[in-house]
Amino acid sequence: MEEMKIVQLDVQDVRFPTSLKSDGSDAMHTDPDYSCAYVTIKTNKNVSGYGMTFTLGRGTEIVVLACKTMSKMIVGLKPQDIFNDFASFWRKLTSESQLRWIGPEKGVTHLATAAIINALWDLWARIEEKPLWKLLVDLSPEQLVSAIDFRYITDVVTKQEALELLRSQQSAKATREAALLQKGYPAYTTQVGWLGYSDVKVRELCAKYLDLGFTAFKAKVGQDLKDDTRRCGLIREAIGYDKTLMVDANQIWEVEEAVDWMKQLAKFQPLWIEEPTSPDDVLGHARIAKELRPLGIGVATGEMCANRVIFKQMLQAGALDYCQIDSARIGGVNEILAVYLMAKKLNVPVCPHAGGVGLCEMVQHLQMWDFVSLTGTTEKRLIEYVDQQHEHFEDPAVVQKAHYMPPSKPGYSTKFKDESLRDYVYPAGREWQRMFKEGVFPAPTD
Amino acid sequence: MEEMKIVQLDVQDVRFPTSLKSDGSDAMHTDPDYSCAYVTIKTNKNVSGYGMTFTLGRGTEIVVLACKTMSKMIVGLKPQDIFNDFASFWRKLTSESQLRWIGPEKGVTHLATAAIINALWDLWARIEEKPLWKLLVDLSPEQLVSAIDFRYITDVVTKQEALELLRSQQSAKATREAALLQKGYPAYTTQVGWLGYSDVKVRELCAKYLDLGFTAFKAKVGQDLKDDTRRCGLIREAIGYDKTLMVDANQIWEVEEAVDWMKQLAKFQPLWIEEPTSPDDVLGHARIAKELRPLGIGVATGEMCANRVIFKQMLQAGALDYCQIDSARIGGVNEILAVYLMAKKLNVPVCPHAGGVGLCEMVQHLQMWDFVSLTGTTEKRLIEYVDQQHEHFEDPAVVQKAHYMPPSKPGYSTKFKDESLRDYVYPAGREWQRMFKEGVFPAPTD
Repeated sequence: MEEMKIVQLDVQDVRFPTSLKSDGSDAMHTDPDYSCAYVTIKTNKNVSGYGMTFTLGRGTEIVVLACKTMSKMIVGLKPQDIFNDFASFWRKLTSESQLRWIGPEKGVTHLATAAIINALWDLWARIEEKPLWKLLVDLSPEQLVSAIDFRYITDVVTKQEALELLRSQQSAKATREAALLQKGYPAYTTQVGWLGYSDVKVRELCAKYLDLGFTAFKAKVGQDLKDDTRRCGLIREAIGYDKTLMVDANQIWEVEEAVDWMKQLAKFQPLWIEEPTSPDDVLGHARIAKELRPLGIGVATGEMCANRVIFKQMLQAGALDYCQIDSARIGGVNEILAVYLMAKKLNVPVCPHAGGVGLCEMVQHLQMWDFVSLTGTTEKRLIEYVDQQHEHFEDPAVVQKAHYMPPSKPGYSTKFKDESLRDYVYPAGREWQRMFKEGVFPAPTD
Repeated sequence: MEEMKIVQLDVQDVRFPTSLKSDGSDAMHTDPDYSCAYVTIKTNKNVSGYGMTFTLGRGTEIVVLACKTMSKMIVGLKPQDIFNDFASFWRKLTSESQLRWIGPEKGVTHLATAAIINALWDLWARIEEKPLWKLLVDLSPEQLVSAIDFRYITDVVTKQEALELLRSQQSAKATREAALLQKGYPAYTTQVGWLGYSDVKVRELCAKYLDLGFTAFKAKVGQDLKDDTRRCGLIREAIGYDKTLMVDANQIWEVEEAVDWMKQLAKFQPLWIEEPTSPDDVLGHARIAKELRPLGIGVATGEMCANRVIFKQMLQAGALDYCQIDSARIGGVNEILAVYLMAKKLNVPVCPHAGGVGLCEMVQHLQMWDFVSLTGTTEKRLIEYVDQQHEHFEDPAVVQKAHYMPPSKPGYSTKFKDESLRDYVYPAGREWQRMFKEGVFPAPTD
């Protein structure tokens, strides 16, 4: 029988007009159109892989072009050869001798890496006919570490240490998997606190999510202290002080400003301040964490951490109380596994960033693997949940009683419905053409 | 009279086939084709600005597309409005609410920012009919700091502190400028030590550059310890121990590996080890610097530092003995000025990275400004010099007796000759078409 080969890599620019309703608005991103670069890896067999990286609208075309440039390193390969030595393939993709200059391992090319690598994991899970979390759980410790490039992180975790961490958990996996299938994984909601929402809408949403069983709520802050005070008060009034509140500044502050501002909001007892300053500022986050810990406020960041090297330092420096991996910014599942291993080694809980297009769908798999195969606990751990764009996926995230329920279908839950692609591919999709025609959005020039 | 307006932004993919001769080869970049994204900003008057960001070949098309996307924020503006509040324009360009997600301030979009911002400074200098270094020197401290976005760096230097630093140097500027015009600025050469060169070629080049008056030489290391030992020995034999040797690993090592490897090379008394590990690893560089300082070896890095926030931390952490700004990676002149100010504040000498397409042409202006307006010294300071691609520029860098001589023509020295564009625009240029036809390089697909 002919061996399976990758025969084509397609990439599409898919955008949803979320700016119309201020969904997703924060201090730095005032009018996002939640979007993605969407990769389809086709084989000569009856199976394809679907992967994506999340974007905010403008600029998605640049990530799409990067995926096209990188596709030349993939088409023609046998998927099994990739999966047998995934770390080497990952290194090859991220260290291409000319292309790495325009990264390296950050920005547009690393987002493109994420989309492609995520599509390969989806393909692998579909071939194995397992949801990704189960594929990961069923890999032996040796197979799992063979997917990870340990370059630049051996001062925190070596391949051998990673193996030992994973082996030590093997015997507990079956019990944990059973518990996971029964209870799911706890979630928190960000839906109540986007900056652009009115007070009435915030109150309605608090009531709605309390009814749905949520006990942890996140609000955006950072544009105006008086407004933050009012909004945090509003949410605390609605949810009470027995529930959990987190706040998120989306990088708006200077280091000292973050400390001062959060001292003013400490009375609302937030569990964490998320992204207080530049995502690149390890030492800045460490200083903020040191100042705020005595007030009971932790520091969380990660959705814009460029790669495992920045995560490594955040963890080394004590800059993070909650490590927020993102499934679409760093270079796909392989690199995220490295971050989970470093977080385990340095004893920092991972609370994934989600909410963007496909992020909830993806991170649930990773966090469920973490529970079953690595940490065995959900203590101090929650997955972000935002109720947007799930309707476009064939296998959307399912949250019941504020818990993500383990996906059962094969893959990484990242395949779009055909009609969503028909409507929202940019700019040719049916909905975009309608909106251009009706003047809701200007049609793109050249 | 009609005011000056920007009417067009063109961007070209320009590539030189340097991989044919191993020029520029190092441990991580084995076959670079020195290239650039080349921006031309046209006005309604008889003056244009030319700017670039350096690349290594494949992927330049992605940076070109990013420039095109960003051009929509520039066309139609009045240059004078930009220059009057340059920091605000810079912030607008780097913080565009949708586009920043695919950076922020790193990778492809920040390279594109550099190309565009550099073209604007070239335009400004041409309008003022001054070489860029002289434009910078002649700006008042108030004008100069008005070009800098201090976001995320106020914990090291505030706008007020920057003003004071600059004001304190005002009275010494005239004397320093006269000295600069007479003596130029000291250079070192990297031409002797590319990894792909034979021993015979290395010996010949050492002799040649000694004859030209050079006293400082840099060699690439990191692929093989035995080979490095042989090559460093070869160069020391040729130049003697009274001259300066630097070595450059181009990010090849793990943190501990860098320490161990350099202990083996310490006998060759290198002034610095450049890029020992990941360019993102502030804490790793700090650890390497701490281990190597007692051996008399300094740590240098910067050509791949993503932005001022990474530089800030490198300086804060004592990770750098030599700060290597790059004129084409971080967001153009404005952001580089911020790095110079932080380096001055924290007392670290700046030794610019150069050698790529246009880098020598650009960094000379910046370092000359530093000498005249900020630090007043060339002690522990050198500009890298590589004798490649200068022939393509209308106003090429001039190095005499191992000193960069101050440019006298208006602009940032970044305008290509027409015939170079005709020959090396990729893939349509005459030379590329010839090479495709003769099978020297494969023609690009799609």
